[in-house]
Amino acid sequence: MDNFTFYSPTYFVFGKDQENDTGKYVKRFGGTRVLIHYGGGSAARSGLLDRVKASLEREGISYTELGGVVPNPRSGLVYKGIDLCRKEKVDFILAVGGGSVIDSAKAIAAGVPYDGDFWDFYKGKPVTEALPVGTVLTISAAGSEGSSNSVITHEDGMYKRGAGGDAMRPVFSILNPALTQTLPPYQIACGITDMMAHLFERYFTRTSDVEVTDRMIEGLLLAIINEAPKVVKDPADYQAQANIMWAGMMAHNNSCGVGRSQDWASHAMEHELSALYDVAHGAGLAVVFPAWMTYMLDRGGVNRLAQLAVRVWGCQMDFENPVNTAKAGIEKLKQFLKSIGMPINFSELGAKEEDIEEMAHKACYGDGGDGTIGGFVKLNKEDVINIYRLML
Amino acid sequence: MDNFTFYSPTYFVFGKDQENDTGKYVKRFGGTRVLIHYGGGSAARSGLLDRVKASLEREGISYTELGGVVPNPRSGLVYKGIDLCRKEKVDFILAVGGGSVIDSAKAIAAGVPYDGDFWDFYKGKPVTEALPVGTVLTISAAGSEGSSNSVITHEDGMYKRGAGGDAMRPVFSILNPALTQTLPPYQIACGITDMMAHLFERYFTRTSDVEVTDRMIEGLLLAIINEAPKVVKDPADYQAQANIMWAGMMAHNNSCGVGRSQDWASHAMEHELSALYDVAHGAGLAVVFPAWMTYMLDRGGVNRLAQLAVRVWGCQMDFENPVNTAKAGIEKLKQFLKSIGMPINFSELGAKEEDIEEMAHKACYGDGGDGTIGGFVKLNKEDVINIYRLML
Repeated sequence: MDNFTFYSPTYFVFGKDQENDTGKYVKRFGGTRVLIHYGGGSAARSGLLDRVKASLEREGISYTELGGVVPNPRSGLVYKGIDLCRKEKVDFILAVGGGSVIDSAKAIAAGVPYDGDFWDFYKGKPVTEALPVGTVLTISAAGSEGSSNSVITHEDGMYKRGAGGDAMRPVFSILNPALTQTLPPYQIACGITDMMAHLFERYFTRTSDVEVTDRMIEGLLLAIINEAPKVVKDPADYQAQANIMWAGMMAHNNSCGVGRSQDWASHAMEHELSALYDVAHGAGLAVVFPAWMTYMLDRGGVNRLAQLAVRVWGCQMDFENPVNTAKAGIEKLKQFLKSIGMPINFSELGAKEEDIEEMAHKACYGDGGDGTIGGFVKLNKEDVINIYRLML
Repeated sequence: MDNFTFYSPTYFVFGKDQENDTGKYVKRFGGTRVLIHYGGGSAARSGLLDRVKASLEREGISYTELGGVVPNPRSGLVYKGIDLCRKEKVDFILAVGGGSVIDSAKAIAAGVPYDGDFWDFYKGKPVTEALPVGTVLTISAAGSEGSSNSVITHEDGMYKRGAGGDAMRPVFSILNPALTQTLPPYQIACGITDMMAHLFERYFTRTSDVEVTDRMIEGLLLAIINEAPKVVKDPADYQAQANIMWAGMMAHNNSCGVGRSQDWASHAMEHELSALYDVAHGAGLAVVFPAWMTYMLDRGGVNRLAQLAVRVWGCQMDFENPVNTAKAGIEKLKQFLKSIGMPINFSELGAKEEDIEEMAHKACYGDGGDGTIGGFVKLNKEDVINIYRLML
């Protein structure tokens, strides 16, 4: 296990009706002039936005609004939000939505007190100062409600890049599983794939002696795999949604990723897919991960893949030929993703073979890249091309 | 899953040599006049105290000292600490030691700004204000470095009671596994038993649909069971100590105990043992837990015990007679505790049959008790007597 620091100071408020206390928490964490940031019309149509506003009004907190965040959130709205906050002297950003809304809110929060271009943070500058962000989560997926990260797509070149820093961790996050009971099963399944991917990225490590975090990751995966079919079949299943929601947070606040090298090549490859075709992040990951794992079979991945297969997928260990177990685990993952309605290849995503070269180039050399991606195995452009080809 | 809030804002600094930056973290969290609180002479003899003091001096932070915390820490030193802090205008408590030292530091921290008797908090008053506490952990066990709790024994009557409140969570905790490499195996094993007990107390719940926290608890137990024999056999095994150390924190910061009823009857029974005989908390728990589990076999505990036996102890499920599986799991626990050197009955603890009545009375009716203990099954005095008898 490597040396590390871990700091997750978010105040989590979990359960039914908790969004009605949003104003109370904004006040507790010092907000007096709030930007409410949200996505499309669903937060308004469902009445959620009205409940949140009413709770702010009860506390005498003024607010301004900025809606319109899209999946794979864009830089344009971030710039607009930064300007609006400065003009309105906003001192607190309240994200009402899913990972895209929260990521956009974090980008605005980092940008407001910063003199330069907020995109600097997405080119690798750590975020050390930001306005406080609170969240009211509406979908279990990205884990952004508890994480120190944000992913934004720059419209100039459609680069999708991540920024990070503890200053971006939300000061509070309200997690009401009931808000996810009306989501379409496809969107729920995308979220589930995303949280599983966050765990896989941490699982595939070159750090030895990481039993405790291995076991936590495996435990979370087992829980997700058990609960996922329930919520996809019946989104109204509150209890299953509650389990998925807490799992999604735990999967990405890094308590099970500390002290170990991580991978993140699959996220980098997916980012190019969703930037180019605007596919849901989770759907892209469902196509990328089995291909990446398959590529790892010849590159030192057999032991970890077999461990995952046995401990999480319940495969029998083939002690003579562990590679068979590793392959069986990848097959189980594919079947699972298919069973919850995820795509498993390029054509189901609407992705095109002729774009592989460009995507591989951007993944490896785009904005700040050094020509390789990944921590478990360093992949160069040729590797990335090979992995994309496995998705055809 | 029940509604809950979760707030764990401790800044964890994990790894070799990190205690040399103690002063930096005290400064970051606002300390200017520090009380260094510690136990016996080992922190001094090992040179740890000198390194911590040097780091404070490098940051120009003044300090005063209060040593002498004993295992099962006492109220007398807490009163002394509160007086000293007020006299010296201390604004930060730095605990250098294990769970006892940290618990004593938390009690002082809560007592300083409070007008009444600090013992009020140990009679049930929630702690909402306290001086900031930082810790330099020297043994993996209590999890107090990340928890909102403290346990103190009042010398007037030898009542051992707990207090809690997020205000008592340390602002930072420095976890250097190397500091645990020189501990005696018996003490290490006591710590391991304590962290396992923290997980058991949370595992035995009446709340349904808690798959995600179940799986996290099971994962942590699996990791502890895998690493424990290594550290008991060879305390110098840094990597195994590192796994145990992070597991101990995760076992008690409540991230895997949220949204579910918990039990804590075994801790209450153990507190009477260690208050009366001054045995190590972990050693007491090793005797109490198998007895408590056995008593649960006839009181609705079979399903949970069988789940624990299968998922954690690797027992085969007896689908016709799950009680056999449950019993096999308890047997595995006993064997495990014995294998790491723990006592398994009253006589090994030095406890006496004739004190059972008094201990049961104090556990159930002592200081603020309502005549019952436990959340999984409410136990009255007669139940507690029966369980103590199982330990003979």
